[in-house]
Parts: sequence; structure tokens; C-alpha cells
Amino acid sequence: MKSTTPVKIWNVTQKHRVEKNDYLAVEEPVEIQLGLKNQEPKSISITMRTPGNDFELAIGFLFTEGIIQSKDQVKNIDYAKVWDPEKEENIVLVKIAEGVEIDFLRLERHFYTSSSCGVCGKTSIDAVKFSGMKEIPKNKPVFDHQMIHKLPDLLREKQAVFDHTGGLHAAALFDNSGKLHLLREDVGRHNAVDKLVGAALIKDMTPLHNFLIMVSGRASFELIQKSLMAGIPILAAVGAPSSLAISLAEEAGMTVLGFVRDGRFNIYSGSERINLPAF
Amino acid sequence: MKSTTPVKIWNVTQKHRVEKNDYLAVEEPVEIQLGLKNQEPKSISITMRTPGNDFELAIGFLFTEGIIQSKDQVKNIDYAKVWDPEKEENIVLVKIAEGVEIDFLRLERHFYTSSSCGVCGKTSIDAVKFSGMKEIPKNKPVFDHQMIHKLPDLLREKQAVFDHTGGLHAAALFDNSGKLHLLREDVGRHNAVDKLVGAALIKDMTPLHNFLIMVSGRASFELIQKSLMAGIPILAAVGAPSSLAISLAEEAGMTVLGFVRDGRFNIYSGSERINLPAF
Repeated sequence: MKSTTPVKIWNVTQKHRVEKNDYLAVEEPVEIQLGLKNQEPKSISITMRTPGNDFELAIGFLFTEGIIQSKDQVKNIDYAKVWDPEKEENIVLVKIAEGVEIDFLRLERHFYTSSSCGVCGKTSIDAVKFSGMKEIPKNKPVFDHQMIHKLPDLLREKQAVFDHTGGLHAAALFDNSGKLHLLREDVGRHNAVDKLVGAALIKDMTPLHNFLIMVSGRASFELIQKSLMAGIPILAAVGAPSSLAISLAEEAGMTVLGFVRDGRFNIYSGSERINLPAF
Repeated sequence: MKSTTPVKIWNVTQKHRVEKNDYLAVEEPVEIQLGLKNQEPKSISITMRTPGNDFELAIGFLFTEGIIQSKDQVKNIDYAKVWDPEKEENIVLVKIAEGVEIDFLRLERHFYTSSSCGVCGKTSIDAVKFSGMKEIPKNKPVFDHQMIHKLPDLLREKQAVFDHTGGLHAAALFDNSGKLHLLREDVGRHNAVDKLVGAALIKDMTPLHNFLIMVSGRASFELIQKSLMAGIPILAAVGAPSSLAISLAEEAGMTVLGFVRDGRFNIYSGSERINLPAF
């Protein structure tokens, strides 16, 4: 399945109209099913996503939601065989290795801390703390502020699909030399982060202690949660963070930067990881 | 509960750092419970939202998801009484009027078409068609293209909270004279639309056949779905639409505009409702 689709549009300016060929980002539902030995596959998530990197999305989602703790717990990932070939690539079946126990009750609680469903019962932050959040290294890595200013341009250069449609969110991993190690895109911000973390897990890069994650758009509680599950110490967002995002980041000792664009940014927490101008 | 909270930040430019007082958009979980006569309240949704207009959010969500068809089906809305006063404003209890039947099985299917959970089973668009989507009037209202160009500025002028935090999405209803009739904001785009539709429902403005809905950010499948449930014939987004959003809009005969900013916009569907430049 493709991640963009062609479309004919009218482009309208103050004085003129022009018919143009353009591209849209594809949005399609995907269902993640868990397969345990001797059991029927169980549906655990249905979300809208941009097709592409679906297996990374599935394994990343399971990992950032605390359902699996390592890639060894997964025996096999593939599209489920279904009667309708058009739908085949919309169901991902993750077979869990023998001996690994999945607590389905805990799974239900987890959905309340996931991107879509908010939280309940205990406070949101406690819920994350008990879900297997990793410790992150203190005081490192350190990024120079001049490097932070460069990140939006570095990200844009690499955003192949974004250039076509303008409709995709991006998540990228940078080290403090400005090298971009991974980039994933999706119509959903949380999916872009899940794909990124899933790819890192498959490549044995986790925990991601030496990296900064840059995200387009805003920094919500959920993006902080998912980044912390992968051990990422710094999150930089093009947009604004929320109150709960910053509360969780402070609790975990994470650095959060917002409005990273146009040669400026704000530090909301963890300023010790940023090498600041002298005054 | 407040919708913004003060924070101390470092503002970092190419050469300098400045400590500043700033504001964050508040993000807090809210649970919507349905109360039916002689039954325990049932939790049907938990989502992250910005506090404020919570009752509109609840009734709007129930309406745009097809769970209720009119405000008369609601007997009473209030915060649930809970043991923890800090959490009290995070649970909204909607008491359903006697004699109104809620199909909880259908409710479960509905969550698969909601913002957070995607779709399953039948195709996404079929699911919306069967969920009580309203017919919209053909060929009207008609907006002049010069009016569309003005909408982003008109929206910004009114966005009180946005000015403080830059962290909130907005949804607004305009008529074709450029009058803004309603504006709601939230950290979640779908919540901003639910609050708007809920307010319109309470004010007896539905179906919203004479209005255009303007949304910050992108136009996803879900935003089109929710707008159609309220009978809105035109959606204008500051960002890009997705493929599935346009498929649903075309199916319903709805007009979708994207990239409405900086004196230009694109028409993706339903161009008959826009008075275009001659060439």
C-alpha cells in the first residue's frame, strides 16, 4: 500500500485559480492483533495510520505501551491472512514467543494511558511510572544550542513524503553532532513515534540514551510517555508542550524543548542538557 | 480547573538566553460516563483534554459519535461526585432521559470510528454512513473566495487562549458574511470540534447547514466524520487533508479546503460551494 495518493485540486490565490495535480497523505485503519500459542489472535488496537513501516508501528506500539519489554518476546510479525485481499495489509498479527506472558488486564489499563484514550484510575503520571518507564542518564547527552537551531532544517531536508503532501507528522532521532539516525512519518504523531521506536528496537538501538527525538507539531503527554519508554532523554518539538507533558518530563528528569523553529526555542525542563549562550 | 498554567522557561535565540514567564495549555484526562435509570454509570470514553466547556465536550462527543440524536435525550449533565475532590472535574456524568435506549454493542463499534481508535470490520466510510450521518444541503452555502482568504485572520483575532500558549487547536463556525458564531479550543483537535458541536447542540443551532467549520491543523477522517454528523457542508483546514478524509467528503458531497493560509487555499472536494476567481 502506498503512503501518498494523487489528487486533482483547485489552487486558489487572491486573484486566480489553477487546477493542479497534488498528493494526499494516505490515512487507513490498521488493526494490531496479538497471537499467543493455542489461542485465537486477540485484537488490541485499531488506529488510523499512514501505510508503510507497519511492522515497526506494531512492535513500537507494543513496546512504548509496556506490553512487551524486548524484541525477543516477539516470535514473528506478518499481515494477517483475511478473506478480503484489499484489507490484508490493514491487519498486523504479532505472534508472541512461547513462555512470554501478556497480562491482558494490564493491557486494558494501558489503553487508558495511550494516545487516544487518556487515563483513568490512578493519576496519569503514576500510571506511566508503573508501566515500565526506563531510567534516563543524568546530565547527558549535552546538545549545543546552535545545534538545536539547526534541527528543523535538518529534519525538513530528509522529510521525503512531507514535501509531497504537507500532511504527515515526523519523528526523528538525532545525536549531538547533528547526525540524523532515524526518521519516520505518519498522519498521527503517536504513530510516527511508535514507528521510530519500533525501528530502533529492531535495529538493537534501544535504550536510546544518546539521542534527542525531534517531533513536528506539539508535545503532548503521550509523546513524552512513549519517548521515556524508549529511554530518550531529550524531546524537541516544533510546537508547544502541554502542562501534563512537562509535569511528566520533570518527574522523569527529561529535557523538553518547544517552539524549535526560526532560530529560537524554549526550554521547559532539564536545561542542564543544553549548552546555553553565556547570557 | 484552568485551561492554562504559568511556567518559567528559558527562551533561547541564536545569541542569547532569557528567562521568561510563559503559559502552558493544560492537558488533563476526562472520563465520560453514561447514566441510565436503575443502572450503574458506565464509562464510555476517557480522553486527554483541556479543561473548560466539559459539558459541551461530553454532549458533543455523544452526538458526533451517533450515541445520542438530540439534546432532549439527555436528562442532566454534571461532574460525578467522587471521593477525591481534585479528580472531581475529570469525570462527567451524562444522565440519559428515561425511555431512550442506548445500544452499548453499537457503542463499542463506534469507538472504532472515533478519533482515537480508527475503524474495523466494515470499511471506515461505510461505518460512518451507518452511524447516523446527516444529509447536507446541495450547492450551499456559497462562500466567496475572498472571504475564505480572510478566515485565518478572523480566527486568530478571536483565539484568546491560543495567544497565551500556542498549544491549543481551534474549531470555529463562520457564516458566509465572515461572522464567527462559535469558537472552541483544546489540546486535541477532535475535542475542539466536539466542544463546538456540543455548544451548537445546546444552543439549538443544529443541523449546522449554513456554516463553514474552520479548524487549525490538519483535516483527518475523524474531523470530517464529526462535522458531517452535525450537518456542516464545508470544512476549511489550516493544514493538509488526508486521503480518507477526502474520500468521505466526496461520498457525502461535502466541500473540503486545505492549506487555508497566507492568501491561498486548495479545494479538494465540493468546489461548487466556493465562488472562484474568473480565471
